[in-house]
Amino acid sequence: MGEKIKVGVIGAGRIGKIHAGNIVKNFPDVEVKAIADIYADTIREWAKGLGIANVYADYKEIIADPEIKAVVICSSTDTHSQITIEAAEAGKHIFCEKPIDFDVRRIHAALDAVKKAGVKFQVGFNRRFDHNFKKVKELIQSGEIGDVQIVKVTSRDPAPPPIEYVKVSGGMFLDMTIHDFDMVRYLTGSEVTEVYANAGIMVDQAIGKAGDVDTALISLKFQNGAIGVIDNCRQAVYGYDQRVEVLGTKGGISVSNDVPTNVVVSTKQSVAADKPKYFFLERYMESFETEMREFFASIAAGKDTPVSGIDGLKPVLIGLAAQKSYKEGTLVRLEE
Amino acid sequence: MGEKIKVGVIGAGRIGKIHAGNIVKNFPDVEVKAIADIYADTIREWAKGLGIANVYADYKEIIADPEIKAVVICSSTDTHSQITIEAAEAGKHIFCEKPIDFDVRRIHAALDAVKKAGVKFQVGFNRRFDHNFKKVKELIQSGEIGDVQIVKVTSRDPAPPPIEYVKVSGGMFLDMTIHDFDMVRYLTGSEVTEVYANAGIMVDQAIGKAGDVDTALISLKFQNGAIGVIDNCRQAVYGYDQRVEVLGTKGGISVSNDVPTNVVVSTKQSVAADKPKYFFLERYMESFETEMREFFASIAAGKDTPVSGIDGLKPVLIGLAAQKSYKEGTLVRLEE
Amino acid sequence: MGEKIKVGVIGAGRIGKIHAGNIVKNFPDVEVKAIADIYADTIREWAKGLGIANVYADYKEIIADPEIKAVVICSSTDTHSQITIEAAEAGKHIFCEKPIDFDVRRIHAALDAVKKAGVKFQVGFNRRFDHNFKKVKELIQSGEIGDVQIVKVTSRDPAPPPIEYVKVSGGMFLDMTIHDFDMVRYLTGSEVTEVYANAGIMVDQAIGKAGDVDTALISLKFQNGAIGVIDNCRQAVYGYDQRVEVLGTKGGISVSNDVPTNVVVSTKQSVAADKPKYFFLERYMESFETEMREFFASIAAGKDTPVSGIDGLKPVLIGLAAQKSYKEGTLVRLEE
Amino acid sequence: MGEKIKVGVIGAGRIGKIHAGNIVKNFPDVEVKAIADIYADTIREWAKGLGIANVYADYKEIIADPEIKAVVICSSTDTHSQITIEAAEAGKHIFCEKPIDFDVRRIHAALDAVKKAGVKFQVGFNRRFDHNFKKVKELIQSGEIGDVQIVKVTSRDPAPPPIEYVKVSGGMFLDMTIHDFDMVRYLTGSEVTEVYANAGIMVDQAIGKAGDVDTALISLKFQNGAIGVIDNCRQAVYGYDQRVEVLGTKGGISVSNDVPTNVVVSTKQSVAADKPKYFFLERYMESFETEMREFFASIAAGKDTPVSGIDGLKPVLIGLAAQKSYKEGTLVRLEE
Repeated sequence: MGEKIKVGVIGAGRIGKIHAGNIVKNFPDVEVKAIADIYADTIREWAKGLGIANVYADYKEIIADPEIKAVVICSSTDTHSQITIEAAEAGKHIFCEKPIDFDVRRIHAALDAVKKAGVKFQVGFNRRFDHNFKKVKELIQSGEIGDVQIVKVTSRDPAPPPIEYVKVSGGMFLDMTIHDFDMVRYLTGSEVTEVYANAGIMVDQAIGKAGDVDTALISLKFQNGAIGVIDNCRQAVYGYDQRVEVLGTKGGISVSNDVPTNVVVSTKQSVAADKPKYFFLERYMESFETEMREFFASIAAGKDTPVSGIDGLKPVLIGLAAQKSYKEGTLVRLEE
Repeated sequence: MGEKIKVGVIGAGRIGKIHAGNIVKNFPDVEVKAIADIYADTIREWAKGLGIANVYADYKEIIADPEIKAVVICSSTDTHSQITIEAAEAGKHIFCEKPIDFDVRRIHAALDAVKKAGVKFQVGFNRRFDHNFKKVKELIQSGEIGDVQIVKVTSRDPAPPPIEYVKVSGGMFLDMTIHDFDMVRYLTGSEVTEVYANAGIMVDQAIGKAGDVDTALISLKFQNGAIGVIDNCRQAVYGYDQRVEVLGTKGGISVSNDVPTNVVVSTKQSVAADKPKYFFLERYMESFETEMREFFASIAAGKDTPVSGIDGLKPVLIGLAAQKSYKEGTLVRLEE
Repeated sequence: MGEKIKVGVIGAGRIGKIHAGNIVKNFPDVEVKAIADIYADTIREWAKGLGIANVYADYKEIIADPEIKAVVICSSTDTHSQITIEAAEAGKHIFCEKPIDFDVRRIHAALDAVKKAGVKFQVGFNRRFDHNFKKVKELIQSGEIGDVQIVKVTSRDPAPPPIEYVKVSGGMFLDMTIHDFDMVRYLTGSEVTEVYANAGIMVDQAIGKAGDVDTALISLKFQNGAIGVIDNCRQAVYGYDQRVEVLGTKGGISVSNDVPTNVVVSTKQSVAADKPKYFFLERYMESFETEMREFFASIAAGKDTPVSGIDGLKPVLIGLAAQKSYKEGTLVRLEE
Repeated sequence: MGEKIKVGVIGAGRIGKIHAGNIVKNFPDVEVKAIADIYADTIREWAKGLGIANVYADYKEIIADPEIKAVVICSSTDTHSQITIEAAEAGKHIFCEKPIDFDVRRIHAALDAVKKAGVKFQVGFNRRFDHNFKKVKELIQSGEIGDVQIVKVTSRDPAPPPIEYVKVSGGMFLDMTIHDFDMVRYLTGSEVTEVYANAGIMVDQAIGKAGDVDTALISLKFQNGAIGVIDNCRQAVYGYDQRVEVLGTKGGISVSNDVPTNVVVSTKQSVAADKPKYFFLERYMESFETEMREFFASIAAGKDTPVSGIDGLKPVLIGLAAQKSYKEGTLVRLEE
């Protein structure tokens, strides 16, 4: 075991705490040297419990620390691109939560800075590292089901977010479907060329008043000829619904939901199984650790990260196309 | 038990033989008095085995028989509308295999004749009577899942039909998806208002040369605000794939495939279950009997049939819209 | 098609009516020439509806009819052996509902008569012909799971029979488990050598007062070294529970219950599937037709029937051993 | 957060390392002050990686450390009772891996020492803390399925252990079934009163030569009137098979195996799902952490541990009865 790589975590909200905790507990070769949050005082006790030495209110102290070789950016979305640029210029490797930005020019600016600095850059599309979806990808790559013809993603939240969040989230296509746009790119290994968003407001009229939709079917064409559909809903009362199906020329693959237990109860009323895991952190907990492990492995081995800057950019472009499709009631072609 | 109702079956291909056999074996109140087929000689032995007294080469002999109160039209599609008109004018109740016709004017002519004659008319959308899908409909109607938001139909054949059939079938949207268009109307209880067909040729280039597609995702809007998607493929190598999913405001429903047995074999290689029933006749056998039972029950009770002339017309209109959408690469709105 | 084989059905209770109906509807080569029931008047209308020409109060009229080549014995159990003897002496092939008798000497007398007459004889262990269990047998025979080590049968009724029936049924081991004793012999292809019945009265004390048990685990040893267990209950409130599991040196097989539909409903409360088919006639309907088809095929081909006289005898011997084991609280070895 | 409770881990084999790792990573209130292993040199590097300060070859150094308030005994089975006695006399709380001992007198001696010292004592029956089985227990306790009638445990290893282990393991009933004996006591909340072990050698004759069996069905009676069966096999080629079924007067419960992923692949050959998790550490990993959490919670709250000394004793008594039953070919009653 050589010297530990020192890392700084920027932003200690829900996901920042998860990443910091995972690194401290499970990565003996990595040290969280510092964590920065604008509400630094509220996290001091928690950071101490994890043995994190430095808590800053200003992330720039992390950027300025030459010992820190990598940053994990978990601050609010509007700060991602700016922090990315500063960290890249300081020569630090970067793990950045998704999305990089909602503004395509700012994404390009961030990716340009990364490229110029030659640092590693990974976007937090954690679902690629989920045990189920990773296996689907492996099966497709192995040729088990031949050429992909149809990919279907079901992605529904158990309950809508607060209206205040809906107003600033960038809209369902950018805050929720963005994960699914990444998933279809990941699974097909091909780029989306055409989008048609069929959507409506069926869960809560307040969501419509806030300018968003709550239920959608997004029809997709891919460069390799495959076609796909994503269905989203802000509310699936039975729990967090995260499934994928792929049809290929030699077979099909399907993934059902993870459940808390495999217990089935048979009574006069029904044969009842567990509902899907309800909360995204519970459902995807393992993937947060795996993506981070891959990030540090990429640094250690000097190889490409598994989720590149382009992987961060493309889903935003597809999301913007979906927004346009819905608003104008037309198909939207993505430019090459 | 009163006098048996006498019926004539027109067309003794695969489905005609099934209907005739079901009536003879299972409907003690109905008598198949005659069967007509242009290849009359080839079916005499079979008809005799069932105890059917009269075999004609010309269906007009059935039309002309005043004892025959109902006809079951199973001849080739291009004859459906004409025979319907003649049967209606002769005052006979009509069960007509789907589709009524590919020509909308001819469908209207047939339905007009039915209306004028005041006879019962039922279209052979048998899947409505399938044990699984009937239960989905009942659950939706009971309010179990609240208002329908999303309906998804997966409908894939195990293997493509002969190219000769593809050339004359009217195209996948009219020969295959037509059942699914009926299914979504049945399940939602609402009319389709907009269609977008995303499709391609991925199974066999010969299908493309014949002017058809073999893989499709059809995105739909409904009058009641719901949205839906149908996915079709001419070939699912694992078998006949017939599933439905519905998301509503109070819950979700899903239907998996029927299987020959529930046997699961666990070995070093895998945990393997049966593939779906492969053949549509095996999969839907029970529904052919049930639809026929409902037809005769409607006659006996003087009530509306469960699949009306409009139910025969609408899927053709949606199918034509899907064709247009695919060919022009646009959304197509259906006129009221 | 040659001349139809003429058959007489003896006993027109529930199962007699099913067999008669299946033959009339589905077996074009067989004619039900007569049916006998001590309550002849109550079945005349039903028999007429099926086109059965002769209805007798006395089964001896069937025995005496030289045109009748085979009998289907569905009368009460206490008459099976006597009618078998008379039918055999009259040279008729015999399908006999299970059990042949509860008295082992009378079974031997019946089987001796059958042997002497050289007629075909089949016992009504219909579950061997069930789509699920037949496939399990085929997989075992094919060597798919290697040598059988453990066989487990779950066999539970949805609700207990009337106490009046319990009093005369011969006891749970002989009226219910007898099917399972046949199943384990069928699946393992080996004879039971040792029985231990672990049982109790947990559903209804009245069953205990009637001298019977309502819940049991019967542990078995087989001649080929395998071991097995059957669990029974007079009441499974969720429905008719009919499952099998086999462990072999190369794999395992399991069979879950047949369900009315594959519909799954997900709500805030649960993810609920259909309960097992509730009624044994619904669950095993297909097997009643198949066993009869095999019976007539054996006659036509002059080959052995698939369920022999020994197959009728052995489960009674095992059942009697289980009774003894329970009453004496010991293991019981079966004599060779 | 008060002062950390200091703990010593005795024995750093597979399970000792797991417990130590779990405590270090996940229990901020507990400190592993020392670890003892007779091969101390082989674990120094590993211990250092976890930040464990002291590594001893002799567990007595842990016993002698007054700062250490609790010990986790993971050494070889033959040392458990002696170390328990010494730890108890030193006033330390004790978590002891199962079994306490194979010699009933030594178990009593250990439990007497624990009682006299008034320290907490918990036995490592980790499966009680598994997400699936814990839920089964909760459902039974809640009355959801009424009174328990039948409990069935399937417990099969993926592959047999080395013959060298078989020779010293105490035999299958004591090294493998012991977990299942605990499970049925846990689930039924009742004591076993009678045992019949039906077993054989079907996997490997070498196991028989070593004096053990490899396949077994153990039939059980419980004090509350319920009956049960455990089936074991040293080898299930498809993976680690860990299931439970319970039938009660108001319903049934079943637990299927945990799988690595929910991916299902449908091809021309089959519809294939994942095999069960193969390795017991993978399958039960979460339960090892939970049992330890409960142990320290019991200490902190001054309440009884969830797996008592009696819970450690009883499964050994049942296992010895099963051995006797198998060897003598009789039922064995357990004394009160």
